[in-house]
Amino acid sequence: MVEPIKIEDALQQVTDLLTTNQAEAAGEFIRTLHPADSAEVIAMLEPEQQAQIAARIEPVELADIFEQLDEDEMVEVAEHLDTETLADVLDAMEPDMAADLLGELDDAEMYELLAEMDDSSGVRHLLEYDEDSAGGIMNSPPPCLRRWMTVAEGFEFIRSHYRTDNELYYLYVLDRFGTLIGVVNLRTLILAKPDETIETIMNRDVISTATDADQEEVAQLLARYDLLALPVVDGEHKLVGIISVDDVVDVLEEEATEDIYRLAQISEDAEIFSPLPRALRNRLPWLYINMATALISATVVTSFEGTIALIPVLAAFMPVVAAQGGNTGNQTMTIVVRSLALGEIDLSDTWRALRHELMVGIVIGLLLGISLGGISYFWHHSVWLSLLTTVAMIVTLFVAAVVGVLVPTTLKRAGLDPALGSSMFVTAFTDITGFAVFLGLATLLLQYLL
Amino acid sequence: MVEPIKIEDALQQVTDLLTTNQAEAAGEFIRTLHPADSAEVIAMLEPEQQAQIAARIEPVELADIFEQLDEDEMVEVAEHLDTETLADVLDAMEPDMAADLLGELDDAEMYELLAEMDDSSGVRHLLEYDEDSAGGIMNSPPPCLRRWMTVAEGFEFIRSHYRTDNELYYLYVLDRFGTLIGVVNLRTLILAKPDETIETIMNRDVISTATDADQEEVAQLLARYDLLALPVVDGEHKLVGIISVDDVVDVLEEEATEDIYRLAQISEDAEIFSPLPRALRNRLPWLYINMATALISATVVTSFEGTIALIPVLAAFMPVVAAQGGNTGNQTMTIVVRSLALGEIDLSDTWRALRHELMVGIVIGLLLGISLGGISYFWHHSVWLSLLTTVAMIVTLFVAAVVGVLVPTTLKRAGLDPALGSSMFVTAFTDITGFAVFLGLATLLLQYLL
Repeated sequence: MVEPIKIEDALQQVTDLLTTNQAEAAGEFIRTLHPADSAEVIAMLEPEQQAQIAARIEPVELADIFEQLDEDEMVEVAEHLDTETLADVLDAMEPDMAADLLGELDDAEMYELLAEMDDSSGVRHLLEYDEDSAGGIMNSPPPCLRRWMTVAEGFEFIRSHYRTDNELYYLYVLDRFGTLIGVVNLRTLILAKPDETIETIMNRDVISTATDADQEEVAQLLARYDLLALPVVDGEHKLVGIISVDDVVDVLEEEATEDIYRLAQISEDAEIFSPLPRALRNRLPWLYINMATALISATVVTSFEGTIALIPVLAAFMPVVAAQGGNTGNQTMTIVVRSLALGEIDLSDTWRALRHELMVGIVIGLLLGISLGGISYFWHHSVWLSLLTTVAMIVTLFVAAVVGVLVPTTLKRAGLDPALGSSMFVTAFTDITGFAVFLGLATLLLQYLL
Repeated sequence: MVEPIKIEDALQQVTDLLTTNQAEAAGEFIRTLHPADSAEVIAMLEPEQQAQIAARIEPVELADIFEQLDEDEMVEVAEHLDTETLADVLDAMEPDMAADLLGELDDAEMYELLAEMDDSSGVRHLLEYDEDSAGGIMNSPPPCLRRWMTVAEGFEFIRSHYRTDNELYYLYVLDRFGTLIGVVNLRTLILAKPDETIETIMNRDVISTATDADQEEVAQLLARYDLLALPVVDGEHKLVGIISVDDVVDVLEEEATEDIYRLAQISEDAEIFSPLPRALRNRLPWLYINMATALISATVVTSFEGTIALIPVLAAFMPVVAAQGGNTGNQTMTIVVRSLALGEIDLSDTWRALRHELMVGIVIGLLLGISLGGISYFWHHSVWLSLLTTVAMIVTLFVAAVVGVLVPTTLKRAGLDPALGSSMFVTAFTDITGFAVFLGLATLLLQYLL
């Protein structure tokens, strides 16, 4: 029975050993951990400590650890290794992860490593695919059964063709041209009689994906059909690779993080303890873009300076209307973005979503508008101010519903990620509308408000 | 070879058949689909159409479909079934899903169904656990091996104790007290010699979880160690259940959606086409709370009405400073929330995160402050206005960094979800600070600004 270890404790132990010059013992200790834990500890070490540890772990073990690191971390650790050692590590890694690491290096370094590797064919093949596509996350296809084999022959085939470190989720069945024609799960194989043929027990309805499918769609497909692995086929339905559920779990977490960060206007590779230059690179561009849109909204306000000077209480209610527009628009936008990501809607539902959100937006606008109108009446005892805030709120929330649907769907239609930049556009539109409608109406009603 | 079907096409076909009174044919068609697809189509039908379809599908097939619906949808469809049929459906469902459905019904209905079920023991057992805990998502433990069995006996055991509809990920090994002592994967079993004992091939380092572990932690554990299934043990390390990776994939999507919606201030059960009353319930409370905090900010502004009346351009720059505070604070808060959710940090890292974010916040504040100061100088040619915007921005972003870290960590410390309400608190603090610092400083500097 093992309990998951406390990473902080392990990290403490390793740094204690390293600071007392017991690098050998530190390496030994790291090697007793699960690769997932070793990886986390190594990622948190200082560069020179990483170098000390990396020098004391065998390439095969380093390969297991590398497979648990994310790409930036792999590159960091890889920098401490000489070409020969790194090539050995790459040889021992799963090809999809090795391809991800090589893809992060510059071309000269990549070609040098490919040349140094014992067998780079699998990796070279994968490097052709976009790393966020099915081809980029797949691994080499496992040994496959033939339909004329008996169950007993199937077991014999597995014993002779699989090594203990091969993953084994499903057994795929190919015809003599390499076309995928069926799938048998291990449970069915074990439960079948030894003399039955694979053809009689295999399932012909194999769900598969194409090499160029987006990794997020692949993840949805596995999740939807509760699969442990998904075969990847080329244009002629020949089996070219396999994607397993544990790769997909990583993809789902990665895509969810990407959406969460992009919605909050942060680069998707932000991390909590990113060094200052990277933190600034991940966050500042968005803040500057937002400041630019905020300044556009500010010019709207300055064009009504005269009105504000006469009735300064408008400066207090104006941000309330604009903020509610931003909040409501961002609620709608977030629901649209997430529904698109989960495949619950596609672009053909845009019109239906727009009608639905307009209905919701108008009702919310009425309710919030009347509430704010009431509050402003009790506060300032002016029927006209109350009318002004109510109408401005309704109009702003109407616009919020429109942009909440149209901004993400338009980005998606243009082939962009609907999560990327949506909140900036939505807020810009709702701020400008909120300010313009509120102050414009106030200017029209000036004689009644004074 | 099957390609995933287009749901819209299937839905069209079903509604066409139903509107032309061919309910029988519609039922037939639904039954040809994968349960995941049937479920999606059924969820999109009108209530009376659901009733027509449900009446034409056998309980065992309905069970497969129910397992693919989310809880609200299960309850909707269940309403069309009589108690006897629904009890048959529950009997055929996986116990964890059946327990989820029963948990959504009122108590009287639940007890009636439990009484009507052929075998409700598994479900009754699960109903004791919180549905978001390991106990709530686990299923009954599979038949387990004993350490003294040979590999050949192990195969014999599997053949006699597993049915084809049992999932089979790993084989667990128990001692005679029911304590979990090892695990064998199927690949190892197939590759082992028939006369080896289970004890010699089993892995003693079984990673397990407790019944009361949070489902999100369980998902992290499976993802971290790339497991297909995780055994659940009680206080005495007896095996009481098993959680499989496909349940975890659903948990990951559910938790990511929950975080995304909560960060955008929407109830986590929002759906794109929620009927109006539910859409309002999911969204209005947050908007009212935000309006309340916006009105508190507004009182700050009104207390400086005199200053604004004298220098109305302040009303234009004030929202820019506050908006940048809100954006930066929400960036920080989002990174903290996601890092907590992914287990990359825990509460003991609060102080370290605070120091890091203060450093980032001060640098961002300096850069944005100087930029905004520069822009305001070129716009209004007032050194004092420029100084005012710069200082107000720096102070506001300092506060943004503090609340961006402390709001989510404090919520978590109080046992609440850090995603829930964080953006409301962060925005309230940054707005109030932004307005108060900007207008307060302006009032102090009034003689220079005029």
